Amino acid sequence: MVERQHGEAGFGAPEGDGTTDRFASLPTLAYGGDYNPEQWPPSVWREDMALMRRAGVNLVSLGVFAWSRLEPRAGVYDFAWLDEILDLLAGNGIGAALATPTASPPPWFSLAHPDALPVRADGTRLTHGSRDTYCVSAPAYREACARIAGALAERYGGHPALRLWHVHNEYGTWCHCAHTEAAFRRWLIDRHGDLAALNEAWTTAHWGQRYSSWEEINAPRATQYLANPAQSLDFRRFTSEEMRAAYREQRAILRRHAPAVPVTTNFVLGDWVPVDHARWSSDVDIVAIDHYPGAAGRTAEEQTAMAADLARSWAGGGKWLLIEQAADLVYADGRALAKEPGRMRRHSLSHIARGSAGAMFFQWRAPRGGSERWHAAMLPHAGPDTRVFEEVAGFGAELPALAETDGSRVHAEVAILADVEADWALSQPGMPSADLSYEAALAQAHRVAGRAGHTVDFAAPGADLSRYKLVLVPSLYLVTDADADNLAAYVEGGGHVLISCFSGVADEHTRVRTGGHPGAFRDLLGIRVTELRPLPLGERVVLDDGRVGTLWTEEVRLAGAEATACYPSGEPAVTRKSAGRGVARYLSTCLDDEGYAAEFTVAVTAAGASPVLPGLPADVEVVRRAGGGRVWLFVLNHAVDERRIGGVRGRDLLSGRAIAGELVLPGGDCAVVRLG
Amino acid sequence: MVERQHGEAGFGAPEGDGTTDRFASLPTLAYGGDYNPEQWPPSVWREDMALMRRAGVNLVSLGVFAWSRLEPRAGVYDFAWLDEILDLLAGNGIGAALATPTASPPPWFSLAHPDALPVRADGTRLTHGSRDTYCVSAPAYREACARIAGALAERYGGHPALRLWHVHNEYGTWCHCAHTEAAFRRWLIDRHGDLAALNEAWTTAHWGQRYSSWEEINAPRATQYLANPAQSLDFRRFTSEEMRAAYREQRAILRRHAPAVPVTTNFVLGDWVPVDHARWSSDVDIVAIDHYPGAAGRTAEEQTAMAADLARSWAGGGKWLLIEQAADLVYADGRALAKEPGRMRRHSLSHIARGSAGAMFFQWRAPRGGSERWHAAMLPHAGPDTRVFEEVAGFGAELPALAETDGSRVHAEVAILADVEADWALSQPGMPSADLSYEAALAQAHRVAGRAGHTVDFAAPGADLSRYKLVLVPSLYLVTDADADNLAAYVEGGGHVLISCFSGVADEHTRVRTGGHPGAFRDLLGIRVTELRPLPLGERVVLDDGRVGTLWTEEVRLAGAEATACYPSGEPAVTRKSAGRGVARYLSTCLDDEGYAAEFTVAVTAAGASPVLPGLPADVEVVRRAGGGRVWLFVLNHAVDERRIGGVRGRDLLSGRAIAGELVLPGGDCAVVRLG
Amino acid sequence: MVERQHGEAGFGAPEGDGTTDRFASLPTLAYGGDYNPEQWPPSVWREDMALMRRAGVNLVSLGVFAWSRLEPRAGVYDFAWLDEILDLLAGNGIGAALATPTASPPPWFSLAHPDALPVRADGTRLTHGSRDTYCVSAPAYREACARIAGALAERYGGHPALRLWHVHNEYGTWCHCAHTEAAFRRWLIDRHGDLAALNEAWTTAHWGQRYSSWEEINAPRATQYLANPAQSLDFRRFTSEEMRAAYREQRAILRRHAPAVPVTTNFVLGDWVPVDHARWSSDVDIVAIDHYPGAAGRTAEEQTAMAADLARSWAGGGKWLLIEQAADLVYADGRALAKEPGRMRRHSLSHIARGSAGAMFFQWRAPRGGSERWHAAMLPHAGPDTRVFEEVAGFGAELPALAETDGSRVHAEVAILADVEADWALSQPGMPSADLSYEAALAQAHRVAGRAGHTVDFAAPGADLSRYKLVLVPSLYLVTDADADNLAAYVEGGGHVLISCFSGVADEHTRVRTGGHPGAFRDLLGIRVTELRPLPLGERVVLDDGRVGTLWTEEVRLAGAEATACYPSGEPAVTRKSAGRGVARYLSTCLDDEGYAAEFTVAVTAAGASPVLPGLPADVEVVRRAGGGRVWLFVLNHAVDERRIGGVRGRDLLSGRAIAGELVLPGGDCAVVRLG
Repeated sequence: MVERQHGEAGFGAPEGDGTTDRFASLPTLAYGGDYNPEQWPPSVWREDMALMRRAGVNLVSLGVFAWSRLEPRAGVYDFAWLDEILDLLAGNGIGAALATPTASPPPWFSLAHPDALPVRADGTRLTHGSRDTYCVSAPAYREACARIAGALAERYGGHPALRLWHVHNEYGTWCHCAHTEAAFRRWLIDRHGDLAALNEAWTTAHWGQRYSSWEEINAPRATQYLANPAQSLDFRRFTSEEMRAAYREQRAILRRHAPAVPVTTNFVLGDWVPVDHARWSSDVDIVAIDHYPGAAGRTAEEQTAMAADLARSWAGGGKWLLIEQAADLVYADGRALAKEPGRMRRHSLSHIARGSAGAMFFQWRAPRGGSERWHAAMLPHAGPDTRVFEEVAGFGAELPALAETDGSRVHAEVAILADVEADWALSQPGMPSADLSYEAALAQAHRVAGRAGHTVDFAAPGADLSRYKLVLVPSLYLVTDADADNLAAYVEGGGHVLISCFSGVADEHTRVRTGGHPGAFRDLLGIRVTELRPLPLGERVVLDDGRVGTLWTEEVRLAGAEATACYPSGEPAVTRKSAGRGVARYLSTCLDDEGYAAEFTVAVTAAGASPVLPGLPADVEVVRRAGGGRVWLFVLNHAVDERRIGGVRGRDLLSGRAIAGELVLPGGDCAVVRLG
Repeated sequence: MVERQHGEAGFGAPEGDGTTDRFASLPTLAYGGDYNPEQWPPSVWREDMALMRRAGVNLVSLGVFAWSRLEPRAGVYDFAWLDEILDLLAGNGIGAALATPTASPPPWFSLAHPDALPVRADGTRLTHGSRDTYCVSAPAYREACARIAGALAERYGGHPALRLWHVHNEYGTWCHCAHTEAAFRRWLIDRHGDLAALNEAWTTAHWGQRYSSWEEINAPRATQYLANPAQSLDFRRFTSEEMRAAYREQRAILRRHAPAVPVTTNFVLGDWVPVDHARWSSDVDIVAIDHYPGAAGRTAEEQTAMAADLARSWAGGGKWLLIEQAADLVYADGRALAKEPGRMRRHSLSHIARGSAGAMFFQWRAPRGGSERWHAAMLPHAGPDTRVFEEVAGFGAELPALAETDGSRVHAEVAILADVEADWALSQPGMPSADLSYEAALAQAHRVAGRAGHTVDFAAPGADLSRYKLVLVPSLYLVTDADADNLAAYVEGGGHVLISCFSGVADEHTRVRTGGHPGAFRDLLGIRVTELRPLPLGERVVLDDGRVGTLWTEEVRLAGAEATACYPSGEPAVTRKSAGRGVARYLSTCLDDEGYAAEFTVAVTAAGASPVLPGLPADVEVVRRAGGGRVWLFVLNHAVDERRIGGVRGRDLLSGRAIAGELVLPGGDCAVVRLG
Repeated sequence: MVERQHGEAGFGAPEGDGTTDRFASLPTLAYGGDYNPEQWPPSVWREDMALMRRAGVNLVSLGVFAWSRLEPRAGVYDFAWLDEILDLLAGNGIGAALATPTASPPPWFSLAHPDALPVRADGTRLTHGSRDTYCVSAPAYREACARIAGALAERYGGHPALRLWHVHNEYGTWCHCAHTEAAFRRWLIDRHGDLAALNEAWTTAHWGQRYSSWEEINAPRATQYLANPAQSLDFRRFTSEEMRAAYREQRAILRRHAPAVPVTTNFVLGDWVPVDHARWSSDVDIVAIDHYPGAAGRTAEEQTAMAADLARSWAGGGKWLLIEQAADLVYADGRALAKEPGRMRRHSLSHIARGSAGAMFFQWRAPRGGSERWHAAMLPHAGPDTRVFEEVAGFGAELPALAETDGSRVHAEVAILADVEADWALSQPGMPSADLSYEAALAQAHRVAGRAGHTVDFAAPGADLSRYKLVLVPSLYLVTDADADNLAAYVEGGGHVLISCFSGVADEHTRVRTGGHPGAFRDLLGIRVTELRPLPLGERVVLDDGRVGTLWTEEVRLAGAEATACYPSGEPAVTRKSAGRGVARYLSTCLDDEGYAAEFTVAVTAAGASPVLPGLPADVEVVRRAGGGRVWLFVLNHAVDERRIGGVRGRDLLSGRAIAGELVLPGGDCAVVRLG
């Protein structure tokens, strides 16, 4: 069976928390990027060291894709260059996050083990010639990974430059091959126990899919029409768990040789990624994420804040690490838009404010060739005499001033329930409307709370929520009975919840709860939804209080709740019910931002939660950090023009200035004010 | 050779018509839906019976996808549950349309016979895990189908609940495997006789495709560039005939055990479907269609009326059965829009008015899981205490009042020529314009006639047309010489035709007729088209009478006809020619609805045909049924507001009210008035 | 190693130029089309001969797809029909461009040699049933090609009708099979010498792709993420060279049997085509292109002029042949739009003016069936009594009057640098912006120069440019050091260049030049670009001189140049630097047509180049041809209305009229005026 492990903020807290300082080997605030000296002649390495020092770099990710260089032929290793690089780094006071290079098996490996290449759902066997061309279930691949990880650990486990093990890179290659299917069947036996349970969980009576033996069960490969949704969901779960097992194998090997060095892997966000980061997070010594906002304008900052809050939540509220970002580019709509002056600094500070133990980049030096030749870098093709490198070096110089914030924590009174399984289930085909997006619902809740001045945590549905005054539950389509009970108990105990449409409808096997929606939350909310009514393309509905619903409506019947806003038909659209000492609110339509903000304001006020700073100007981001009796405000002015923030007294660590009541921030500028 | 079989209205009339009552075993007006008790525990079955009685259900489709439940392992049958269900149904007075479950072979079958899984054009072998994963040409599949059909027939052929055999479900799985190709070659030998004839018919001299042996001929699999259009067309014909043969095999087995029980399969509409329903219709004892409109608003009603008129025409003008519709949803643009109150009833009555012997739904009870967990149902997830179930039960209660209309027929003075082979040919790649759509042309003709108050039949091009005053021929791109002669003879004998652009251009092998377009109708129309001139994207042309042409124009030279409207250049756009005692009109452009309606009015008036009711308000649908000396009007008010229809005297069977000249219908309401 | 071969205009001049008259066997001005008598019964052949004579046809392309007719079974030939056709042609004074039919192997060949069918990147093996279903690297295919070419050459090498060998048709079938990969590896060994060089050239250190043996190298088949750009580029080069080798094999066979008959193949334009026409052009005795404009309106004429200028440039400035065009259709946006009256003549004359030795069509007679049944033809389906055939015959009748222009040449003072390798590199995935299009940049330069009255040549980057006063360099992303030096030397010697953004950035292995952009042209231009700044979707930037930049901007630092226009930030946008006796200008943004035209005017004026005719009306195309002491003006009025062109004295060869200073051309009409 798959067990969930939750930490204090509801997500997995890294193992061993509290007993040893898992971060002892790391710089207080890590600064650097992926370093690929194997792409350059040794003459460049010396220039790299000098420029890294100039930029304040103290940590680099090393060897991420270096397998074919480290093991140019099967069993033949070439460590000389890496010896030299690590010695150079150590000599320059720069630490290394040394990678196991398993995300890119060498061409000789693929030629020898074609069964270790991934297979698409339609049966296409992919070839090498890119990166990530592996089947994580292939025995030959797993064995080769263990060998190269072991060789690295044995050789470098005690190297003075070593600060962190960086296992693999962005686990995420889907596979549908025979190895995968065999592993999937083993996982299913473990999860469901017997075929009868699986047939029941997957509703195989539908469309005559009843299985009479385990061998009949495939990965969800190309088929004639819609695949079984429970099978597809379990395949996503399996793929995440299978990758986790592969990660753990490498971690065990690395720990054997270097028990004191923390181990992690870099999480990458995206709906194509099969990894359930929340459930994995207990397996990494430090949560590390790659983050690349995917939109122009202010949205990039809001995506940044959300990613950072997710990472902190996965880390159980503690430290985590932004291990990849782009120094100078935001990719949006197929265009590599420049980050305007100051924007890289603001993005970095937003991550650090929200708990990142530094700001790392992909990559140190822009490569001459290869597929990512136009990816961003700290040191662009044009060299150090560039705006980009100057900003990199400038930020590197001021970062040490923030060291005193180390160990302090973000305090949030509002949480957003988040579970990627709900996302996986809601984004399947065959739903009542393709318009509903779990990601969009999460982002709206985060954005609206942020604009209202609240810093939020994310929390797993089964987490202890008692520390929060308000819990937002955006379209949590899939939820277990136990997790639903957890939310009800939270309200019973005095919590406030704001649940959005199409939540609680499905159980963990994506089976619809019968008797009326939202099945799992019907009693909590005191309503019974008898019909789902997606809106036609482009239509909106105006509620009787003037708010605007989009995409989706429902027929809501009151069963204990009161209606606080109604559809034009007079039927309830928004409801409220007191339950125990708490309050449960429901939105049966997708309100636009303005409407959702109004509901949020009502709910957060009733819940007694306060924004970080009252009366904050628009476009200014504020995060409060506290620890050891001290408090810091991270204040980021995302506006082009100057902004004035009142009620701030203390000292700005970045400028060194004393702030005596009003903080004046030029356009694009930031401050980290130690209050007092 | 493929023979066409036509009934009185031009399409295939079911075999045995007139000698026995093929409908004797069926309820007068069937009401019910697909019933999947195998998805639920027996405790639910009792509730089902009670709720079915409450809803007036008298027929359910049973076991459609139950193969893996009925035969859980090869040769091992489990009939106990079905015995119980059928006994329960019989005990509750509910009939069963018992399905052969061959649309979903069990996983064990696919594992044992991977060669019976379908193969895409690109060679991808699909897997089980959905439904419809079969190759209809695979010997192992055909044998397994015969076995399960035989076992069901043997066991249940005499069961008192049995009313109808429902063979398979929505035949439609394309395959390109070796079995399919072998069968295709056999069919080609049968159709073309020798290779020289095939080479000539397929114009294989083009692009050097001349075949020197039958073994060289493939299904139209993935190739470098455009496939041979005649090959592709023959492959569609073959696939339809191959499925028909598979259907006939099952029918023979079922009839052997239960000669008195009618046999059918459910036709599904859609351009992906390889089945030629018109040519199949002589093989079903009752034409049964699934209908799901695919658009919001009024278009859904017009699609409903058109589907029903097609089904009636396939049934030779007699009874047919709407065997699937959605109780509460219209899928449009990826959204499951609710059917507003009253709309299910209007759709059902529209089908019944046009000849359906009842109104059946997919499905009785909404499933908890599976791919179609969000498909509509008579009994929604939220249970019987819902608007949807209340409407279902309400309509079930009033349906018996319409029993007296049984045996009466629709009378149409206008016919639309329709041939799916023209659709298949016109929708191939490499045409002069991708804008021309046969489906759109048929729909426009039906819509315009309907809005003008005329109920129309569809007719095959080779049908006896003498009963019609006017025949519309929308863009009949492909037509045989014999069928063209049939139309000419109809006009010669006094008929009126309105032929639209790009008709008669190709022969049955999609070869272009030379000498000037529209080849097959050149003499009939008295014109010679020397150039096809598709309009550029978005352009329109205004004729000299103010009407608007879209998409397409032609250079028309008069050769006996007169021009009744001209292009801005002065060249003829619309023509008219008297031929014998009739009149042949031609539209060389795609007029918009308004323009087509104007031409229709001129033509229908000249032909002497009258609308069902003069002066009918917009948004009101009227169908006249007559039989046994009595006449009924089905009147459906699709408007939101009340409508008044004058000139109606009689008794409304639904409300029981007497109508004394003016029928007043509230918005959305219906009446079925026995005149007199 | 791949050697580049350049002719006088910078592209490959056909071999043997100057020593023999490669055109002796051809009509002075060829007129005719693809002729497919194998699609018709012999009775039609006689009609063909009569109609060809009526139309002035003097050359037909014969047998292009006739393999399955010529060799109906392996090794069994049927030449009787072709004997008869060639005799008929000879008897009617019509020459033949006899094709080797190797673009369409017969079905029996594909059945016997499935390994000679092409394989897609995803591994899908295609089937026959279309055309072009071959793998050019498959030994069985190459052998079969040699056999059929040999048989044709042996039989018809001395036939009096033979004028030209037409090898294959539109080389262009991509393949990724094992044969292809083996050939690719051989080519790579030849190109790179050793693995270390390849690993360096391909930057395989990136993403761990280092190869340890040649066998590890694949074609760029389906892989997990982005393919290696250098590998993809080399695969395009290889494919072009592999097809060239296949062409040369056939040429050698044909020449053995008929040394005096010129050999060519028809080039087809399109970004899917792997053939590098410029580098191939030295291998054809006469450059022959197929040209089908792909847009409605005036753009079709501008595409026509550009294609003709490309063909002339590939031909080293000498004669070439438009071997395929459509008589009556322009395909645009999926619609076959008619060519309005006179348009076919204008397109044909535009080609002839720019050096084509005639005007050929695909195809003579519209086919009844087959995939291209709706392709254009000289003789439409409707027969000779049509506008299309009348125009074809009319133009055929006036063509001989232009014979005196034979041997004269176009003189251009402006050249556009063009290299398809830059296109291939710029259109790869992973670029900073998908908006930049090399094709669009070339087309803009050609269009703007043309509208300003200048006839331009295209030239290879390594060509002798000294004859030109101005060289335009649109977005030449990839350039070798040698070619960059060539351009610098040209400027040093007094040349003027106008280089557009994102030029010179990559070397021949698509590796980015470091130190600042545009690497190869940094010194020449006196600038250093430190950042690339693509514009967000839909944004534009207005320069301080009012001109409008689109899609792309750069951060430009002056290093010797002066800014002639600046961005709103004040940073340089357009620069100018004197270098030696010449001038180098740079555009760091994509100016719209108006802005580019303004820069062109400044540059062309400074360079001292003059338009063909000053003060030419808009929509009038003029080309000057000179030779043997005489000068002709081809004047095409593309406007609907009359245009008056002053300063023209001489005799119009088409009308026979004397022109005494002012040429008056009705809308759509043309003149070819011998000046004097």
